[in-house]
Amino acid sequence: MPVPELVEQAREGKARAVARLISLVEDESSDLREVMAALTPHTGRAHVVGVTGAPGVGKSTSTSALVTELRSAGRRVAVLAIDPSSPFSGGALLGDRVRMGDHATDPDVFIRSMASRGHLGGLSWATPQALRVLDAAGFDVVVVETVGVGQSEVEIAGTADTTVVLLAPGMGDGIQAAKAGILEVGDLYVINKADRDGAQQVKRDLRSMLRLAERTDDAWDPPVLATVATTGEGVAEVVTRLDEHRAWARESGALERRRERRARDEIEAIALTAMRRRWGAVDGDRLDDLARRVASRGLDPYAAADALMETS
Amino acid sequence: MPVPELVEQAREGKARAVARLISLVEDESSDLREVMAALTPHTGRAHVVGVTGAPGVGKSTSTSALVTELRSAGRRVAVLAIDPSSPFSGGALLGDRVRMGDHATDPDVFIRSMASRGHLGGLSWATPQALRVLDAAGFDVVVVETVGVGQSEVEIAGTADTTVVLLAPGMGDGIQAAKAGILEVGDLYVINKADRDGAQQVKRDLRSMLRLAERTDDAWDPPVLATVATTGEGVAEVVTRLDEHRAWARESGALERRRERRARDEIEAIALTAMRRRWGAVDGDRLDDLARRVASRGLDPYAAADALMETS
Repeated sequence: MPVPELVEQAREGKARAVARLISLVEDESSDLREVMAALTPHTGRAHVVGVTGAPGVGKSTSTSALVTELRSAGRRVAVLAIDPSSPFSGGALLGDRVRMGDHATDPDVFIRSMASRGHLGGLSWATPQALRVLDAAGFDVVVVETVGVGQSEVEIAGTADTTVVLLAPGMGDGIQAAKAGILEVGDLYVINKADRDGAQQVKRDLRSMLRLAERTDDAWDPPVLATVATTGEGVAEVVTRLDEHRAWARESGALERRRERRARDEIEAIALTAMRRRWGAVDGDRLDDLARRVASRGLDPYAAADALMETS
Repeated sequence: MPVPELVEQAREGKARAVARLISLVEDESSDLREVMAALTPHTGRAHVVGVTGAPGVGKSTSTSALVTELRSAGRRVAVLAIDPSSPFSGGALLGDRVRMGDHATDPDVFIRSMASRGHLGGLSWATPQALRVLDAAGFDVVVVETVGVGQSEVEIAGTADTTVVLLAPGMGDGIQAAKAGILEVGDLYVINKADRDGAQQVKRDLRSMLRLAERTDDAWDPPVLATVATTGEGVAEVVTRLDEHRAWARESGALERRRERRARDEIEAIALTAMRRRWGAVDGDRLDDLARRVASRGLDPYAAADALMETS
């Protein structure tokens, strides 16, 4: 299908066209330039919500419950699930996707998994461009779900308009939470599995740690909420607070700053991909030749990098 | 201190000179080129051991126990602890560093934390170059400790000569382990806290999952070991197996392949840093200007990337 038609169909919300455009992003298609130029004027409307948390807190169930709640308010929702890059994850993630299956037949819900890949980051390098596709396709809310340990929760906070950090009782003590760097990034904190022992303790610990943490957007005091995602308990309140944060972000200028950050990452990702392709890092062997010489100590790495850049 | 003297002192194993060289790496010093050219001929000897695992499995305690065991065999050991990039982690990690304090006064043990930063990866981009410093400084074993969820355990497996994946009872079920992508990357699996309930179950689950996982280096059958890092139980066996893996890797050619991969990452990291600096992504505002125009939809991201690359 020619690009203008594909873009037109995606803007009408046709799932197949949206999926096709995201595949073009992932495949680094030569059509991407045309696609992005066509989509850009139609972006800027979607509320991008990042959902992150350690394995086991119930991210997929929470995302599914959030989608149910947003749908009941008539909003169109897209979910972008960023999987750790593992050849094994296709199988292991089946459980998650099955749980999302409640929404599989709803034409106003779009669900897509993306692998994070290469060493260029915990999020997929293609995330900002995929968000651009979903935004232009008219989704009211785009949920980006990531495993939140290490780098990815910092990245998601830079990418999303609103970041939801999920926790659960029994997932490790407060120091572990601080280690994972979640205290600076959440706009909302949600204690899931709130019907389990220890939920109140997690809430108290988190609140006292949040009081100690230094925050950038100090005009926003992140609420700590409680849910039972399997029953939907507390999820309506999460949606209310998401909307409040969005309104605050718009008025305070925080939304604009985050969108600039997202654009910055997107531009840099495109430029770096272009450079890596020129260097043969994407699919050539120029870099491999240099690596062999460095590994055998025949060349130092700076001289190799010079040689690499000269080829571009 | 002039570079040749610094390199000389580092090669004599002087901790201050080693620390200074790693700081030069982290600061992207203009002396780095000279440093790396001077160090490269003296590298290729150290055994680089990656230690990874989810928060709470006892990574720092295990690393400390491993260092004790290696020291009792008279080996010189360096530890590079890669922290999630969080302004908070300095404080939160104090506990870890205190546990490593047993070795603080041992001149043949070098311990260094490095922040992973930017969106260029779960490992620090500077890791390969820091490893080059420690290798040239004559450490027999260099342990790289990372939080293993998402991207970082794949990266550490590409970086280390031997990768140790730590697990512990009660840290989530088998599916979570598979999600974290650990099944392809471990050369050794160690169930820490083996005196706790459920350790045998974790061992059984892991073994059956490993049988299902597709592995690249299929000539090496990764052992599943058990330790109690707090008492040192089982740690001698870990060292024995590390040595076995190293011998196997050397003979099979796996070591050479991994070192080429490491060189490849190092060259690419140097070249990408050079490009990002030219673009003003490192400390200029050229990229910020473009990001503002893209965020306000006045420019599409490909056109912005073109403009960025033209400035270089």
